[in-house]
Amino acid sequence: MPKISDKGQNMPASPIRKLVPFAEQAKKNGIQIYHLNIGQPDIETPKVMLDAIHSYPAKVVEYSHSAGNESYRRKLTGYYQKYDIALDYTDIMITTGGSEAIEIAMMSALNEGDEVIIPEPFYANYNGFSTQASVKVVPIRSTIDTGFALPPISEFEKLITPRTKAILICNPNNPTGYLYTAAELESLRTLVQKYDLWLFSDEVYREFCYDGKKYFSVMHLKGIEQNVVMLDSVSKRYSACGARIGALVSRNKELIAAAMKFAQARLSPPSFGQVAAEAAIDTPDSYFENVKAEYVARRNYVVEALNAMEGVFCPKPSGAFYCIARLPIDNADRFCQWLLEKFSFEGKTVMLAPATGFYSVPTLGTDEVRIAYVLNLDDLKQAMRCLQEALKVYPGKTEIVSQEMKAAH
Amino acid sequence: MPKISDKGQNMPASPIRKLVPFAEQAKKNGIQIYHLNIGQPDIETPKVMLDAIHSYPAKVVEYSHSAGNESYRRKLTGYYQKYDIALDYTDIMITTGGSEAIEIAMMSALNEGDEVIIPEPFYANYNGFSTQASVKVVPIRSTIDTGFALPPISEFEKLITPRTKAILICNPNNPTGYLYTAAELESLRTLVQKYDLWLFSDEVYREFCYDGKKYFSVMHLKGIEQNVVMLDSVSKRYSACGARIGALVSRNKELIAAAMKFAQARLSPPSFGQVAAEAAIDTPDSYFENVKAEYVARRNYVVEALNAMEGVFCPKPSGAFYCIARLPIDNADRFCQWLLEKFSFEGKTVMLAPATGFYSVPTLGTDEVRIAYVLNLDDLKQAMRCLQEALKVYPGKTEIVSQEMKAAH
Repeated sequence: MPKISDKGQNMPASPIRKLVPFAEQAKKNGIQIYHLNIGQPDIETPKVMLDAIHSYPAKVVEYSHSAGNESYRRKLTGYYQKYDIALDYTDIMITTGGSEAIEIAMMSALNEGDEVIIPEPFYANYNGFSTQASVKVVPIRSTIDTGFALPPISEFEKLITPRTKAILICNPNNPTGYLYTAAELESLRTLVQKYDLWLFSDEVYREFCYDGKKYFSVMHLKGIEQNVVMLDSVSKRYSACGARIGALVSRNKELIAAAMKFAQARLSPPSFGQVAAEAAIDTPDSYFENVKAEYVARRNYVVEALNAMEGVFCPKPSGAFYCIARLPIDNADRFCQWLLEKFSFEGKTVMLAPATGFYSVPTLGTDEVRIAYVLNLDDLKQAMRCLQEALKVYPGKTEIVSQEMKAAH
Repeated sequence: MPKISDKGQNMPASPIRKLVPFAEQAKKNGIQIYHLNIGQPDIETPKVMLDAIHSYPAKVVEYSHSAGNESYRRKLTGYYQKYDIALDYTDIMITTGGSEAIEIAMMSALNEGDEVIIPEPFYANYNGFSTQASVKVVPIRSTIDTGFALPPISEFEKLITPRTKAILICNPNNPTGYLYTAAELESLRTLVQKYDLWLFSDEVYREFCYDGKKYFSVMHLKGIEQNVVMLDSVSKRYSACGARIGALVSRNKELIAAAMKFAQARLSPPSFGQVAAEAAIDTPDSYFENVKAEYVARRNYVVEALNAMEGVFCPKPSGAFYCIARLPIDNADRFCQWLLEKFSFEGKTVMLAPATGFYSVPTLGTDEVRIAYVLNLDDLKQAMRCLQEALKVYPGKTEIVSQEMKAAH
């Protein structure tokens, strides 16, 4: 039998999906599971988007342009203009989800063995994309005690080597929900300029900024226009994860030209999804206002409920629809598996993502979980009730976090 | 300004698409172009497929399973059963087009620097996928004089080195239209078994076999079940290139497990396309009978018209919807560009793909072009008329191919 490649062996399995068999077994045992483990929102996809699919006009489902339909790219410039990001449509290349945008950006900009600095905890699949591109992830730690703020630039600078070629951020952040401030982005700008690095920014949660806080994009930063690549997706924006439509955005023409060669090899992004995504740009503001109000109510409830539990600490994030909580537990992987395998309360349990999967080494985040508040308030209440009861009886419970630490936030 | 990666620089530009600017200019000059340069069929997508899109049921466009919807994969086993390919649904992983199936197969099975033997001329994007995976393409030449039959196995064997890890074929073949016989596949089987190689087979043109000739799949080969990976797509089968739905099929569980990790990193294949592709399996046989009859008529017309032109030779292929013709010209790239830039006949011209793009070095295929007979018969007649007139006046015309060579085929 021929051998699997090294990359095939080294490719990390999805840390979020590895609990799935336990969830399937729990369901077979008749237990209801509240899924707070993945970023699959329950919010309805905008009607304009589904209408466009229902009236898909073509008789032949043809390839599109490798960079995506020109009409869609032109219309997207108007969408970005609302966020004060002025673009030419040729600065935008449509991709198959944000995932492909990240893959192509890495392959276009980074050589094998090059290093990319990423604040951790980070979206687990950045590990996978880096393995694919044979790029080395250099993590820089942000901590729950600061609410996962950007680490000081001096800490970034310590990590820079001759192989450092890029910094990758996610803003608003998955898994932490942290929204970077203008000052934090400005500090990154200085560093990027000093070392002439690529600055990749995954901004797929742009629509989800709360408490009147403003979203700043790397595309707003002056003087590093040739260094910046924004990675985007309609998945979260329109609750259309399955459409698989993303975008790679850069004012660097050479980067776009290189990216186009990878895009041409795979021919074109999905045609149905592009038609839906183009229509989605006409989604009324009221849709986002409602969605945002819903997420704020959910976040407020979840964060309060968590902090009210004995020994639990959860900073209040300003963006995305995730939060990370520190729990009084010995091991997050064990706890999350135990929730599915051994625990139920009134026939129900809750599925969480162990935060270990979002750190570069399995020894970090062992007492943290990521919670995606993607269920309605009633379900969230049930889920938090389950978690509270679970923490009372979990055999691996540890000492509680001091109330002073909570008060400090 | 930060640098583009080596891969981004080395990635080949699409040889088919590089003539596009000349075509655009010709159109601006009011010239009508018959596009025989790309495999975008004009055939209508089956009604069942479009109906499924028009009645897309979900309110939330969710991620699917990373391997594709289970219902779709289960139904696909029935489709393959019609071709005497018995599969479990877990042998099938749904991909974003056949392109992604090839990419993931290469990354899962081959290390950087490993060699893959591919009969040339071959589908140009195999070069791109190999560059992405840092794999070395080792071409083995098939020639127009044999109608592009599989080269003798002894020739394959001469190319085998310690780094040889795979053979990749396309059957029926793009760009040649050649349909491999059972005997040819059996000879490959022996070699694959002897050296324990991977055997990748791109079989996206399965539905297009003519003259009562039978399609044999690598999945039919006994004794190398663990070596075989079939790459598939609905693009050509249902004239649905834009759906971006393909499949990676293998009975090797380790290969599927490795492929799944790459699939999980990119989350899921397109949801709209999957719903359409699942419905497409119910396409009535009459659809394919009509399509096949249409392609046979087109092929017969084109091949006859070509061979009737002075100095032109075109073997008659038994599959796909391409043929390669040898023309009495100095340089195929120059000729194809000249057709767009300098030539028109009654306000019309024809766009062809220079065969050079399908060979590993630019010095091969210099007097060959690939013709995709994806237009209706009336248009094909006009296109062939244009070509005939063009060959009369092309400044780089060379001596004619002997009639004996034609007679020999």
